[in-house]
Amino acid sequence: MSGKRIDEYSVRVFYEDVDLGGIVYHSRYLNFCERARSDIFFSRGLSPVEGEHHFVAKRIEADYLSPGRFKDLLVVHTRLKEKTRASLTLTQTVYHEETMTRLFEMDILLVCLKGSRVSAIPPKMMALFEEGT
Amino acid sequence: MSGKRIDEYSVRVFYEDVDLGGIVYHSRYLNFCERARSDIFFSRGLSPVEGEHHFVAKRIEADYLSPGRFKDLLVVHTRLKEKTRASLTLTQTVYHEETMTRLFEMDILLVCLKGSRVSAIPPKMMALFEEGT
Amino acid sequence: MSGKRIDEYSVRVFYEDVDLGGIVYHSRYLNFCERARSDIFFSRGLSPVEGEHHFVAKRIEADYLSPGRFKDLLVVHTRLKEKTRASLTLTQTVYHEETMTRLFEMDILLVCLKGSRVSAIPPKMMALFEEGT
Amino acid sequence: MSGKRIDEYSVRVFYEDVDLGGIVYHSRYLNFCERARSDIFFSRGLSPVEGEHHFVAKRIEADYLSPGRFKDLLVVHTRLKEKTRASLTLTQTVYHEETMTRLFEMDILLVCLKGSRVSAIPPKMMALFEEGT
Repeated sequence: MSGKRIDEYSVRVFYEDVDLGGIVYHSRYLNFCERARSDIFFSRGLSPVEGEHHFVAKRIEADYLSPGRFKDLLVVHTRLKEKTRASLTLTQTVYHEETMTRLFEMDILLVCLKGSRVSAIPPKMMALFEEGT
Repeated sequence: MSGKRIDEYSVRVFYEDVDLGGIVYHSRYLNFCERARSDIFFSRGLSPVEGEHHFVAKRIEADYLSPGRFKDLLVVHTRLKEKTRASLTLTQTVYHEETMTRLFEMDILLVCLKGSRVSAIPPKMMALFEEGT
Repeated sequence: MSGKRIDEYSVRVFYEDVDLGGIVYHSRYLNFCERARSDIFFSRGLSPVEGEHHFVAKRIEADYLSPGRFKDLLVVHTRLKEKTRASLTLTQTVYHEETMTRLFEMDILLVCLKGSRVSAIPPKMMALFEEGT
Repeated sequence: MSGKRIDEYSVRVFYEDVDLGGIVYHSRYLNFCERARSDIFFSRGLSPVEGEHHFVAKRIEADYLSPGRFKDLLVVHTRLKEKTRASLTLTQTVYHEETMTRLFEMDILLVCLKGSRVSAIPPKMMALFEEGT
């Protein structure tokens, strides 16, 4: 897979995450991936909201590969796929932690806003997504 | 039951609302009741956020009486139980619409804030909770 | 846009749907679209879970076009884009009801399962997605 | 405070947890407490669903003491308040981790079901709630 891994983030599947089939409700994977992105900031003492700068999702392409279930421990890997002055495309993959089976994978295009206008990504924020592990 | 009914609000139970047992996840009833409270404003062309005035929950006493299930159509009844200059206590009851079985009932104490300070409830807001149907 | 409109479904934006920027949290649009799909069944007295048959999401391509905000009344249009014996691709578009501004649009590939195996879509279910309005 | 502390569980406040005021949406505290209860089982390699046995909420009394905010790291303490053969009353308190300010506290009455019938709590489950730390 292209792109350096920026971060990995663990998520437990709780009652609130599953539906009556016992599998993770489809939109919850987007929440898990958002937590992983925010954690890139939090784990370094920073915030995804820096002054007026913040990111918004513009496009998502997502594949559901295998169902997650109640009690599962998952891990989210985040890689930088592409960047421009004002945008990032990240590839985020959710694995079952024990077996490393891929459950979900998405490319997400994020655009940096300052207030409500598209803006260059501040260097301090960009640096986070250029580090590999 | 004491207090005039201020409002009734319909809620359908969707996939996102139920857990692996097929019953409504316990915290979702608080969301259903919040939608019903906000709808008291929306249905009259108003907003629960009026300038800097808004309400926050301070205390909840809730009874889970019977489980709601996927596909159920529910109805939330809201009654005014008590009021002071700066607070309201509402009784909100969630029924199964077809059978009118009571599923959930709570008393919620709401305090009016202006910014972050306790404030008298503006007359236009108070009026909404004094109307009966 | 190709495909007949199968259904339209109204959604109000409540507190639970927005984040600290006051705009709809990105994964909530998937929930709104899922409610719209389930409502196609519910509004005809049917259920999206028919015996052991049900649908699961396999792939999503989604564009965020304009932000939805607290109090907004939205409408979700659902169209059939493609079908096979065991799958449907739907195009779902979320509009601001008053202005009919497009906020969100996704193609979602749904696969029919019987238990945990891919299965032909039962005729009664398929019929729902072939009707236009 | 009465009762031994059974468990403590950390929760980060993410975008999905806050509303347009930037504070934690009121029902999310119930989710945080549920995660803490489930984690009592998970952290010992067990599950809150044991054969047909599981717990359902019957009553909640909750106080909102101070608001949690985006990025906050919270900690949930769980104590056993009362027990009967088939029920537990837990006191769960959510603190701001850094300052140990109390944000939320609730007593929750949980009843053990086997299938849909009230049942004695299996000894292995009861043991978890009788341990102190």
